[in-house]
This record gives sequence, C-alpha cells and structure tokens, in this order.
Amino acid sequence: MTITPKTIYTDVQAIRETSPLVHNITNFVVMNNTANALLALGASPVMAHAEPEVADMTGIAGALVINIGTLSDPWIKAMFTAAQAASDKHIPMVLDPVGAGATPYRTRTATTLVQRFNPGIIRGNGSEILALGSQDAVTRGVDSASKADLAVETAVSISRARGSVVCITGETDYIIKNKEVIKIRNGHAMMPRVTGLGCTASALCGAFAAVNSDPVHAAAHAMAVMGIAGEMAGRTASGPGSFQMQFLDALYQMTESDIQQRFKA
Amino acid sequence: MTITPKTIYTDVQAIRETSPLVHNITNFVVMNNTANALLALGASPVMAHAEPEVADMTGIAGALVINIGTLSDPWIKAMFTAAQAASDKHIPMVLDPVGAGATPYRTRTATTLVQRFNPGIIRGNGSEILALGSQDAVTRGVDSASKADLAVETAVSISRARGSVVCITGETDYIIKNKEVIKIRNGHAMMPRVTGLGCTASALCGAFAAVNSDPVHAAAHAMAVMGIAGEMAGRTASGPGSFQMQFLDALYQMTESDIQQRFKA
Amino acid sequence: MTITPKTIYTDVQAIRETSPLVHNITNFVVMNNTANALLALGASPVMAHAEPEVADMTGIAGALVINIGTLSDPWIKAMFTAAQAASDKHIPMVLDPVGAGATPYRTRTATTLVQRFNPGIIRGNGSEILALGSQDAVTRGVDSASKADLAVETAVSISRARGSVVCITGETDYIIKNKEVIKIRNGHAMMPRVTGLGCTASALCGAFAAVNSDPVHAAAHAMAVMGIAGEMAGRTASGPGSFQMQFLDALYQMTESDIQQRFKA
Repeated sequence: MTITPKTIYTDVQAIRETSPLVHNITNFVVMNNTANALLALGASPVMAHAEPEVADMTGIAGALVINIGTLSDPWIKAMFTAAQAASDKHIPMVLDPVGAGATPYRTRTATTLVQRFNPGIIRGNGSEILALGSQDAVTRGVDSASKADLAVETAVSISRARGSVVCITGETDYIIKNKEVIKIRNGHAMMPRVTGLGCTASALCGAFAAVNSDPVHAAAHAMAVMGIAGEMAGRTASGPGSFQMQFLDALYQMTESDIQQRFKA
Repeated sequence: MTITPKTIYTDVQAIRETSPLVHNITNFVVMNNTANALLALGASPVMAHAEPEVADMTGIAGALVINIGTLSDPWIKAMFTAAQAASDKHIPMVLDPVGAGATPYRTRTATTLVQRFNPGIIRGNGSEILALGSQDAVTRGVDSASKADLAVETAVSISRARGSVVCITGETDYIIKNKEVIKIRNGHAMMPRVTGLGCTASALCGAFAAVNSDPVHAAAHAMAVMGIAGEMAGRTASGPGSFQMQFLDALYQMTESDIQQRFKA
Repeated sequence: MTITPKTIYTDVQAIRETSPLVHNITNFVVMNNTANALLALGASPVMAHAEPEVADMTGIAGALVINIGTLSDPWIKAMFTAAQAASDKHIPMVLDPVGAGATPYRTRTATTLVQRFNPGIIRGNGSEILALGSQDAVTRGVDSASKADLAVETAVSISRARGSVVCITGETDYIIKNKEVIKIRNGHAMMPRVTGLGCTASALCGAFAAVNSDPVHAAAHAMAVMGIAGEMAGRTASGPGSFQMQFLDALYQMTESDIQQRFKA
C-alpha cells in the first residue's frame, strides 16, 4: 500500500490513455469545473441526473461520483437509483457528502447513502466526515469547522463499519482504510478560496477508481494529483481567478517529473 | 450616511475576518461565479434550494440572497420558505429580480416576494426595477432596456412602500432609501459583457449586509467594491474571458489604497 | 450558398450591432460558458426553463436553442412547449442532441424533438447524429465514438426527411442540407478538452440564425467563427484552462482580418 510518484503517474497515464467515463451526479455550482478538471486530466465526464436514465448511464461508466452539494428530492431519488446500479454492476462509487452536518436534510441523505451502499470511497472535509459519524457534529456550511485530524477517529470507525476508504481533505489529506492512515501533504493555501475544489477532488477519485481497482491507491493518487496541481497553479496565480485557470492547465500538463519533485507523503 | 473609502474598507476587512455565511438561492448560470466572487472577497458562500432544508440553511446564515434568474415552481416555493425564515429570524435578505418584466411569471414572482417580505435590499438594472413598480414596463431579457435613471422614481416609491433599499445598477449605480439617493460611478465598460456580474453584485450585497446592519451602507459598499474590482480587472483584460478571471483576482487583492484611489461617488 | 470571410463577418457585425436575444434551454454544465460566449460575440443570452414562462420567453427571442445535456422530465416538457412556441411564431430553432445514443431516454427525447418540430438546425458530433438516425448506433457518453464522416450519410437522410440543416462537428465540420455538404476545417486540438464547446457551437448557431434567415449560412458561419476563435485561443494557451479564457477573448476581439487569414473551407 505504498504510494509513490511511480504509482501515481502510472494511474495518470492510464487515465490519459483510456479516458474512463466518469458519471457525476453532482451539484450545480461545480459542474462546469468538475467536467473541465476531468477532461484536463484525460478522463471523460458525463453529468446526468434524471431518474429514468441514471441507471443506464452508470452502467456504461467506469465510476459513479455522487455529490450532494445542491441536493433536492428528485436528485436524491436519482442518487439512490444510480448507487443501486453501481452496486449491482460492481462499478466503483465515490460519495462527497457536501455540507453534511449543516442541515438535517443533508446529514440524513449522506448517512443513508453510506449505510445503504457502502461507497468504495467517501471524501469530505473534517466537519462533513464528523457529521457522518454523529448527528452531534456541527458543520458550518460547506467549510471545515473542525480540524481534519479530529475526524480521523470517526473515519476509522466508518471505514471499519462500511468497508469504505474514507478520505479527509484539509491542509493534510488523510486516506483511511480500517485503521490504516495514509497522509498526503501536498496543496496550496489558495485552494479553499476557489469554489468546488473539494468536489473536484471527489471527481478525480472517480477517475482514478476507474483505472485502479484498489480504492486506497485510487483515493491517495487523486489527492496527490490535486495537491500537486494546486502547487503548480500557485506558482504564478495572483488570486483565485487565475489560480482556477492555472489549476486546469496543471492537470493537463502534469508530468512524471512534476510528481517526483513535488509529492509529499 | 456618507460612504467613504474608510467605511467601505472597514466592511471589506470585517468580511475577510469573519467570513460570513451567505445563503444563495440563485440561478444556474451564475452559481459558480457567485460562489467564487464571495470566496474571493472573503465570505463563505452556500447554495441550497431544496424546500426541506432552506429554512435550516437560512437560519445559520448571515444573509439570504434570492435571485430569480432561472426560476421554476419548486424553486419559487423554496424562495418563499427561505424568505419567511429570514424574516422570522431577522436575517438580512437581498432580492435580485433577474429578468422581471421579461415574462409575467418573473414579474409576478418578483413583485410577490417584494410585497410579502419587504427585502432589506433589492438590486436590479433599470428595466427590472421599473417592472417591479409597474406591469407596463417592458424588459428585454435580462439586459437593461431603459436607462437606469428612469427607474429612480420607481425605486423611490418601492422604497417608501416597502422600507427596502433599492439599488439600480448601470453606468452609474443608484442606492435609494426613501427619497435619499446615493450615486456611485465606479465600473468598467466590459462588465455587461460578462454574464452574471449583476448577480454577483447582489450576492456581495448579502456579504456586506451580513457585517453591516445598515442596508444603505451595505448596498453602497457592495456597489463600490464591484465597480472598483471591475476597474482593476479592466486595466489588463483583453476580453470578457480574461476580465472575469481578473475580476476575481481583484476582489481577492483589493487594498484600502485601491479603494482610496478609485472610489468615485 | 458560398461561405466566404465576407459572408461570415457580415453576420458577426449584425450580431454585434443588433444583439439578438437567444433563448437557451440548455444543460447545467455549460450554462455559464454558453452565456459568456454569446455575450462575447455580441448576442444577448437568456436562460429560462420553467414551463410557465418558456413560451413567453421564446416569443420575444430571435432564436431558441434546445440542448438536452442534463435533461429531466420537467425540462423535456418545457423544451416541447418552447419548441411549439418557436414553431408557431416562426422563430429559428437549434437542437443539440447531447449524448443521444448514450441512454434510451436521451435518444428518445432527441428523436421526438426532431420528428415533431423539424428544427431549422441540428448540431451534434458524429455519434449523436448517428443516434438520431438509428437506435443501433452506440454513443459513449458525450464524446464522439464514431468518426464524424460516418455520420454524413445519416445527416443527409435526416435533412431530407425533416428539412433541417444538420451540422456534424469534429476535426472537420460538415454542414448538410439535403445532399449538399459544406466542409469547414478550422479549429484546434484543445477544443475537445474544454467542456461544452460543442454546446457553445449550437448556441452560436442560434445567434447567427437570429440575424440570417438562411440556416445553412447561419450554421456554417457559426462553425467558422468557433473554429477561428479556437485557433486564436490556441496560439498562446498552455492548457484547457487558459484556452477557455482566451476563447472568450477571441470571440470578443475577432476582426474581419482574423477571419480572412484563418478561414479554411
């Protein structure tokens, strides 16, 4: 289970060569950027949320990514239908419990998805992961109100109960499977100032899961690529606007040498 | 009620220091940019529109911003529920009546929101404000077909009837409370060529209203910061694409000195 | 039916001078970029999808663009209502059958729209056009799985049956009316790495159709302007992020001389 620049780049190459189709049921705020990040990396995104077609779409995809950022009743219904199709057809599923803890509606939706479908990968910030473990945790909107490391204990218990890899992102990213904890320390301070980079991280988990059957590697590789692209973007960005543009360029340009020079476990 | 670079920057600092949560029920076209503009300025955006959660979300926010740009029946229902929660809990509410006057459906929704909830701030272009005052005004899509100054009279009568601050944006921005009219003359000719900068202006009204209990100041400060960021972006932009990117960078970089040098009342 | 730099630029000027209102019922992923591309070119975009207002909105527009990228039942209902209004009022209609062939739901919706409303212009990639002609064609997501030229035969038969101009985009763009085939060879290799440029192409068809009553010219001019803007963006783009920004700038800056130097039929 060692993550190295070589294991990361092997998966990046696999994504670029095979362009896996990643089916996203995600939120309105980030759809454009999520699609662009997947395309920049080399994957093939599709967004589809209608109940009558989501099972068909998931069925032809290499991974399903469910993100509850702007959820509503018809979308929740489609999320369950798609998750069931992914489960039936052994297609990797990633869950991003955006804003879990902020409202009972979000917390209930996220925890039900976890309990019913045991997603291969769950990625959130510390508050969101805490909210999945306990209704007592308080999330403030979609920002992380608690330190990511406080959530590690919760992540371990979720992972043990559901078999999921739980990924907590923050200044340090934690990738957790049972009691095993991998840390990745790449990233840039401007990342939280661009909307939806957490959602992009979840979408990249889907792209990596489509080419790597080990969800620990998939999640860790996705986090490393996110952080490295962030560092590359941060070199010349003069604010969140230029950062976002350069982040997409970095996903597109990233070489094995970029990964070797920057990867920090 | 004097607006000065000092009063503007004091609120910018307050936003940067306290990161107020701004709950947006807004349109699909601008969600990404609105979220990015709020983040670039230092606020904390959340977008949520599901009827079962909007009251909870508004309840933890510093301001509610309702924008009817891509409205539909379930969203209208959520707008009313959220507005009621804001009213009950004395949370500042901003209304952006996008495209009021273009279709009876929009005009009816916007005027009902105004009449039932007396929003603290209403921000629109001249045509939209005219449409709120009279069903006879004709709006052409979401662009301003009438000169902003023709709408001032309507704005005064709305403000007197509802107690709202009415903000009319255009080449000159008008901030109107009862008969009092403040003018702000910042801005850049490329701003109308980027989609949703009007919506961003309304969202920034929400951020300022979350840190300043006087809605006249909040609206005027938001308009000044919009216009100044536009001027900063316009220095080197070579088209609306680069303008949009540099506008976000400008919101992030803006210093007290930028405001002192550029503010034009 | 000859397309020349002069015929192209004449329409570009007409769009810049008259700012035609283009009513888009399009997908969540591309709304922001579609609106920005229309604005950068000089048109006036409006996005509206609520069943109670789409007929009113189409009625005041210069063109209607229907894009099924993130369709759902309530949106399909609105698409039919808007298409009927366009048909009744002789307003040009463009259809983008995004992902037709990927799921039965999409294929059925797209073919029904074609059969019931005979859109003036249909624009898709090769797989999507194939899917409109036969349920046997297999589309992989929203990417083109079949070479565009394989779809020409299908396009000819659709054009003959429905009277539509069918536009197949790819490395070479084909504009087809009955048996007549116009080819346009502008474009840049990075265009498929930016999400929604196909959707932008369809939206620009709407803008050109609003100022040119010949749908063959409208579609061909739109494809030429897309490809030329792509080439202009590609000169200095270092990845899909900067490409997207420069593409919008190029639409805004494009001169008659740019078209003369680059147009390749």
